Amino acid sequence: MLNISGIAASAGIAIAKAFRLEHPDYTVTQQTVKNAEAEIAKLDDALAKSQVELERIKENTLKELGAQKAEIFESHLLILNDPELISPVKDMIVNDQVNADYALNETSKQFVSMFENMKSAYLQERAADMKDVTKRILGHLLGLNVQNPAEISEEVIVIAEDLTPSDTAQLNRKYVKGFTTNIGGRTSHSAIMARSLEIPAVVGTKNVLEQVQPGDLVIVDGLEGVIIVNPSDEIVAEYREKQVKYDEQRAEWRKLREEPTVTTDGVHVELAANIGTPNDVAGVLDNGGEGVGLYRTEFLYMGRDKLPSEDVQYNAYKTVLEKMEGKPVVVRTLDIGGDKELPYLDLPKEMNPFLGFRAVRLCLDRTDIFRTQLRALLRASVHGDLRIMFPMIATLVEFRQAKALLEEERENLKNEGTPVAENIQLGIMVEIPSTAVLADQFAKEVDFFSIGTNDLIQYTMAADRMNERVSYLYQPYNPSILRLVDMVIKAAHKEGKWAGMCGEMAGDSVAIPLLLGLGLDEFSMSATSILPARSQISKLSRADMQELAAKALECSTAEEVVALVEAIQV
Amino acid sequence: MLNISGIAASAGIAIAKAFRLEHPDYTVTQQTVKNAEAEIAKLDDALAKSQVELERIKENTLKELGAQKAEIFESHLLILNDPELISPVKDMIVNDQVNADYALNETSKQFVSMFENMKSAYLQERAADMKDVTKRILGHLLGLNVQNPAEISEEVIVIAEDLTPSDTAQLNRKYVKGFTTNIGGRTSHSAIMARSLEIPAVVGTKNVLEQVQPGDLVIVDGLEGVIIVNPSDEIVAEYREKQVKYDEQRAEWRKLREEPTVTTDGVHVELAANIGTPNDVAGVLDNGGEGVGLYRTEFLYMGRDKLPSEDVQYNAYKTVLEKMEGKPVVVRTLDIGGDKELPYLDLPKEMNPFLGFRAVRLCLDRTDIFRTQLRALLRASVHGDLRIMFPMIATLVEFRQAKALLEEERENLKNEGTPVAENIQLGIMVEIPSTAVLADQFAKEVDFFSIGTNDLIQYTMAADRMNERVSYLYQPYNPSILRLVDMVIKAAHKEGKWAGMCGEMAGDSVAIPLLLGLGLDEFSMSATSILPARSQISKLSRADMQELAAKALECSTAEEVVALVEAIQV
Repeated sequence: MLNISGIAASAGIAIAKAFRLEHPDYTVTQQTVKNAEAEIAKLDDALAKSQVELERIKENTLKELGAQKAEIFESHLLILNDPELISPVKDMIVNDQVNADYALNETSKQFVSMFENMKSAYLQERAADMKDVTKRILGHLLGLNVQNPAEISEEVIVIAEDLTPSDTAQLNRKYVKGFTTNIGGRTSHSAIMARSLEIPAVVGTKNVLEQVQPGDLVIVDGLEGVIIVNPSDEIVAEYREKQVKYDEQRAEWRKLREEPTVTTDGVHVELAANIGTPNDVAGVLDNGGEGVGLYRTEFLYMGRDKLPSEDVQYNAYKTVLEKMEGKPVVVRTLDIGGDKELPYLDLPKEMNPFLGFRAVRLCLDRTDIFRTQLRALLRASVHGDLRIMFPMIATLVEFRQAKALLEEERENLKNEGTPVAENIQLGIMVEIPSTAVLADQFAKEVDFFSIGTNDLIQYTMAADRMNERVSYLYQPYNPSILRLVDMVIKAAHKEGKWAGMCGEMAGDSVAIPLLLGLGLDEFSMSATSILPARSQISKLSRADMQELAAKALECSTAEEVVALVEAIQV
Repeated sequence: MLNISGIAASAGIAIAKAFRLEHPDYTVTQQTVKNAEAEIAKLDDALAKSQVELERIKENTLKELGAQKAEIFESHLLILNDPELISPVKDMIVNDQVNADYALNETSKQFVSMFENMKSAYLQERAADMKDVTKRILGHLLGLNVQNPAEISEEVIVIAEDLTPSDTAQLNRKYVKGFTTNIGGRTSHSAIMARSLEIPAVVGTKNVLEQVQPGDLVIVDGLEGVIIVNPSDEIVAEYREKQVKYDEQRAEWRKLREEPTVTTDGVHVELAANIGTPNDVAGVLDNGGEGVGLYRTEFLYMGRDKLPSEDVQYNAYKTVLEKMEGKPVVVRTLDIGGDKELPYLDLPKEMNPFLGFRAVRLCLDRTDIFRTQLRALLRASVHGDLRIMFPMIATLVEFRQAKALLEEERENLKNEGTPVAENIQLGIMVEIPSTAVLADQFAKEVDFFSIGTNDLIQYTMAADRMNERVSYLYQPYNPSILRLVDMVIKAAHKEGKWAGMCGEMAGDSVAIPLLLGLGLDEFSMSATSILPARSQISKLSRADMQELAAKALECSTAEEVVALVEAIQV
C-alpha cells in the first residue's frame, strides 16, 4: 500500500483499477530532405487531419460541457491556423532542408519557451495549449498510434503524466471513475474540466505515473488530495464508507434543487448562476438556479472573424430568457479588452491591460458596437425578466453615458414599432474600488449592484491575480474587501435596491457566512456550486452571521477573518 | 499681430525677440561602401564624441537642475551604450555594405516605430529619447553644424519645432527668457525642465515655427498658454503690466520663505518637498521647505551596473539629513519594479507591471537588498530627524514583516556597537486602496501615513495613468479619492498619528483647499510649488475649508467637486 499526495482538483471518491494513459514517443530527429514540397504537403495533410479532429472534439465538448469549456479547442484551432506558427515551420523546411516534424517541433519549442519565460500564469497556459496542438500534429506526421481515452470500456482510474485538454474532453464519464496526474494545479484546464464532468481527480502528484502499474487498485480521494495504491481491505472499506457518505451528501444536495434558499431564521436569499452561452442554461436549471446572475456576452464575440450581428445577439439573448422561463437573467454588456482580446478589433497593445481600455470604456468609445448590443438586448427584453448590467463602471458619468445610449436606442426601437419591455432593471458591476467607495451616490441612479470580486480584489490589493509572484495578495477575506462589500450592500439597501455578487467569492464556503451576514441579496456562482451553497446557507442563522460579519469588519488581516469563520464551522 | 494658442507648460510672462532654433538637415542617403571597417570606425568615433558631449551635459544638468533631471541623460548614455542598438547597426554595415549614417538611421527608425506603436505614454517618451540620441550621433557622422543653444548671447524667445531634452538642458537662463514649440505636452521633458529652470514656456502650438521670423517680437504667456507675435504697443504694455504683477506675486511668495504655513484661523500645516538625491536639498531650502516629505531612494540604484553598497547609501542619507539640519526627512525604501526597472536585477517581464512584483513586495522577497538599505538608514539616523517609510504596503502582514526586518537590523547594529537613533518614526505610503480602507487598523501600528496619490488614484479608478486611452479616469478630485483620503486622515488622528501626502495632488491648487479641509497635516510636493502653496493656504480659513470638504465628500462626480472649489476661488 502506498499513499501519494497531490492537489485535490475535483471532489469525490473513486475506487477502481489503474489505466495508464501513456503518450507515445514524440521524439523527432533531424533529417535532410531534398524535396521540400513533399514535406510541406505532409505538413498540410497533418494540419488538415488535426483540424478535423479538433472540430469534432470541440463539438463534443460544446454538447457535453458547454461553450466556455469548448473555448479551449477554439484556441487550439486558432493556433493550428496561425500563420505566425505555420509560416516559420514551412520556411524552415525550405531554408534548412529539414523534415516537417523536426521543423514543427523546433518552432513550437521556441514559442513554448518564450511563453514559459514570461512568468505569467496566463501565458503558461498558452504554452500548454501550444504543446497540446504540436503533439496532435506530430502524431499525424509521425504516424503514431495515439491512445484514445474515448475508447476505454471498463471502469478505471486514469493515471497520466498530464492530461491534455483534448484527453480530458474525451474521457467517458461512464467508465472513467477518477483520474490522477503527475503535474497540473487546481486551475489547470484538466482540473476545471474534471469539476465540470464531476469526476474525482487529484493532480500535481509529481510521480504517480512512475508508481502505479496497470491493473493496480487505486483510490482517488478528490476531497483530501490523496491517492492510495493497492490499499488494504480495511482501507478500501473505509473509503467505500467515505464514498457513500459523500454520495449521500450529494444526494441531499440534489433534494434541494426545487427548494428556495432560506436560513434557519427564515431569511431568503437568491442563488443564481454565471453562464457564458445559451447552452449553459440546462446546467443552471438542473442545479436549481433561481436565475442567471451573470450572462457573460463575450463568448458571442469570440471565436469569429467579425462582430456578431444584432440578430445573432438577439437570438442568443432570447433563447436564454425563454429557457429561464421568467426567472431573472442579468446580462452583462461586452467586457472585452484587458486579457480578453478580439483579434478583429485590432486593439492597441497596452503596458497594463488590466488597467486599460476595456469593457464599458471601449463601448463608450465604440458606440457602434455598443448600440448594436443594446438594441439586441432591448428587442429580447419582451421574452423574460431581462436585467442589463454595465461592466467596469468607474464613475457616475460613465453610467449616465451608457444609460443615455440605452434610452436613445429604446426610443429608436419604439419609433420603429418594435416592442420593448417597460421595466428593465439597469445595474452595474461593482469591480472598481472608486465605485464601491461611492456606492451611496450610485445607488440613487442604478437599479442594482453586482459585485465582481475577481477584479475588485485585484484592484483593491493592486495585485494581478494572474501573476504568481503577487498571488498571495489576492485575498478575498482581507477585511478591506469585506468593508467595500459592506459599503455596497448598505448603499443599495438604503435606496431600496438589491445587491448581488458574481465573482468567485460568491460560491466560496468560507465567504458565504460572511456575505450572508453582510446582507447580500443574490449570490451568483458556477452552476455546480449552487446546491452545496444552498445546503450550507440552510444551516446558518442570518442573525448569527450578522454578528460574525461585524467582527470580521474589525479584523486587521485576512488570516484573522478566516480564523473567525473556521471557529463557527467547527 | 498674431495670436497662437498652445499648452501652458511653465508659468510666467516673457517678452523678447524671436530666435529660431532650427535643427540641421539630418537626411541620410544610402550608399554602398566597400570598406565596412572604415564605416564602423566612423561610427565608433561618432559614438565616442557623443559620449563625451552627453557626459558634459549630464554634469551641467546635475549641477543646475539636480539628479532627477540629469537622469534623462543617464538614459541617453544607456541607449548610446546599448548593444541591442549598436550591434544591429554594425551588422547592417557589414552585411548590407551600407554607410554608417544610413545603417544607424534605419535601425533607429525601427526601434522608434516599435516604441511609438505601443500607445503607451511611457514608451513614447522612450521613442523621443531614441530620436534625440540618434540625431546626436548623426550630427557627428554627417559633420553637421549643429546650433548650440548654450551660445545664445542676447535676450531671446526660443522658437522651435521641439526642444530635445539636450537642447533644454543647455538653455542659458540669463538670455533665454522663454520658449515655445510646435509639439510637446505639459509632461514632456522640455516642459518639466522649463518649470525647473523657471523659464515661461508654451508648447504644443502646432505651427509657431512656421509663423515666426527671426527678430519678430514675441510674447510668451506661460500662464494662459498663448503666444503673441509682433504685438501692438498697447498689448505689449498690457503684458508688461501682467509680467510685473506676476513678478510681484513671485516676490511675495519669496517673502514667505522663512515663514511657517498658517491659515487665516491660525492652523499650522507643514509644507515639505519631494526629492530624488542629496543635490535636490538646496532647492528645498531655497524654496522654504519645512522638511523632506519623500526622499525617493530609487535614484541610488539606477544608472549603475550593480546594487549600491551599504556605505554608498549611508553617505547619501547622511548628507541629506545633515543638510536638512534637524528638519524631518521621510525616506522611502526602494520602490523599484513596475515601470521602473533595474537591469542588473533581471526581473521577469510581467503582463501588468503596475499590479506586479514591485517595491516592498520585492524587498520582502529579496531581503538581502532590503537589509542593506535598512542598515544604511539606521546608521544614518543619528545625523538628523530620519523617518522611514515603506512603499506599496497592501496588508498589515507586509508591514509587520518589514518592521521585523528593521528591528532585526537595529539589534544587529547595536550588537556591533554602531549607534542608532532611538525614536525613528516608521510609516507607510498609502497608495493601495486596501490600505486606505483599512487605515484605522494600520494606524494602531504605524507612526504616520503618507498618501501617494499618483498610484492610489490609478488603482482606485483601475486606470493606468500612462495610458492615454483611459487617462480621463485619472481623477484626483473624484469624490471616491477624497473619501479615501478622509478615511486615512481620520484614522491617523484617532490614534494621535500624523497624515501627509506626497503625490502630485499635494501641490495642486484645486486640491489644496480640500486637503486642508480634510485635515491633512503635511503636504509634500516639488520644491518650486511650496511657496505658491504657502501663499494660497495663508489666505484660506481651515473652518471654511472643512465645510467645503464636507460638501465635496457628498458630491457624485469629480466635475461637481471642481465646481465647488472654483466657486470659493472666485
